[in-house]
Amino acid sequence: MSHVNGQDVRQKSESPRLYLEDFAVGQVYAAGPIPVSAEAVKAYARQFDPQPFHTDEELARFTFFQGLVASGWHTASLTMSLVVQAFPIAGGVIGGGVDELRWPKPLRPGDELRLEGGIVEVRPSRSKPGQGLVRVRTTTLNRAGKAVQIMIANLVVPRRPAERA
Amino acid sequence: MSHVNGQDVRQKSESPRLYLEDFAVGQVYAAGPIPVSAEAVKAYARQFDPQPFHTDEELARFTFFQGLVASGWHTASLTMSLVVQAFPIAGGVIGGGVDELRWPKPLRPGDELRLEGGIVEVRPSRSKPGQGLVRVRTTTLNRAGKAVQIMIANLVVPRRPAERA
Repeated sequence: MSHVNGQDVRQKSESPRLYLEDFAVGQVYAAGPIPVSAEAVKAYARQFDPQPFHTDEELARFTFFQGLVASGWHTASLTMSLVVQAFPIAGGVIGGGVDELRWPKPLRPGDELRLEGGIVEVRPSRSKPGQGLVRVRTTTLNRAGKAVQIMIANLVVPRRPAERA
Repeated sequence: MSHVNGQDVRQKSESPRLYLEDFAVGQVYAAGPIPVSAEAVKAYARQFDPQPFHTDEELARFTFFQGLVASGWHTASLTMSLVVQAFPIAGGVIGGGVDELRWPKPLRPGDELRLEGGIVEVRPSRSKPGQGLVRVRTTTLNRAGKAVQIMIANLVVPRRPAERA
């Protein structure tokens, strides 16, 4: 949940929740922005990706990235927080696997992130009648509008329960 | 860095670092195990994936997962910490993108994780003479030896500098 716009999140979580039938190819969902501080970059990295270009401004200057950058997995984690905001799916956002994950540019501290997610496929499950798969292509953008992450992911989404007649 | 075997990590970081020429198809690298507590699962989720099946044991019982499970992105983040241990690459582990990411089983709190990473391709860069790509297929295993994550990732690896004659 974003600490900047917790209000929005709460409102969304009280809004009607999405079922498979609510999705259609070409729809675009969005969330953000959320800020990314140097402290957050280093705290994530100390736990999960303890390398100098993610943990230490001074040492980072002499690395591949020539300065502190967020771990790609931190960018992916922040993206997930935006996905949860953007897609208020009934029963929650449940990942059905990722087919592509790219980090075209590194995320620098002091920047901010927002998400755009376009629906590229909607498909009822063949084996499980109560659910389907929604395939989404997400782009995580920095303040300058450059993509720092591109992902193609599959979400497991329930079908709308039959209405009472 | 793992809090259980920081010693191992430190030893590795002082060992000879790997260059492109050190990798060959069929090699297997390994790291772990690291423990995963309910507290860690919930702390990650509160920040990045605030959904009941990741943040609240009681509410989780009534969800898709029928109990608390780690966010797939938490599993991916923990996997990265094992990748950093397993692959002491000169200049650090630098991701060149992920081609596939799957979570065949959810990770439950109280379990532990270890990594196996097999080299599937080693290729000098066409455009950048000083580096190449190593393609690795990682499996993140729980205590029972079941895969909780499978990933095919590309690592950017420097070529060994010419030796002084």
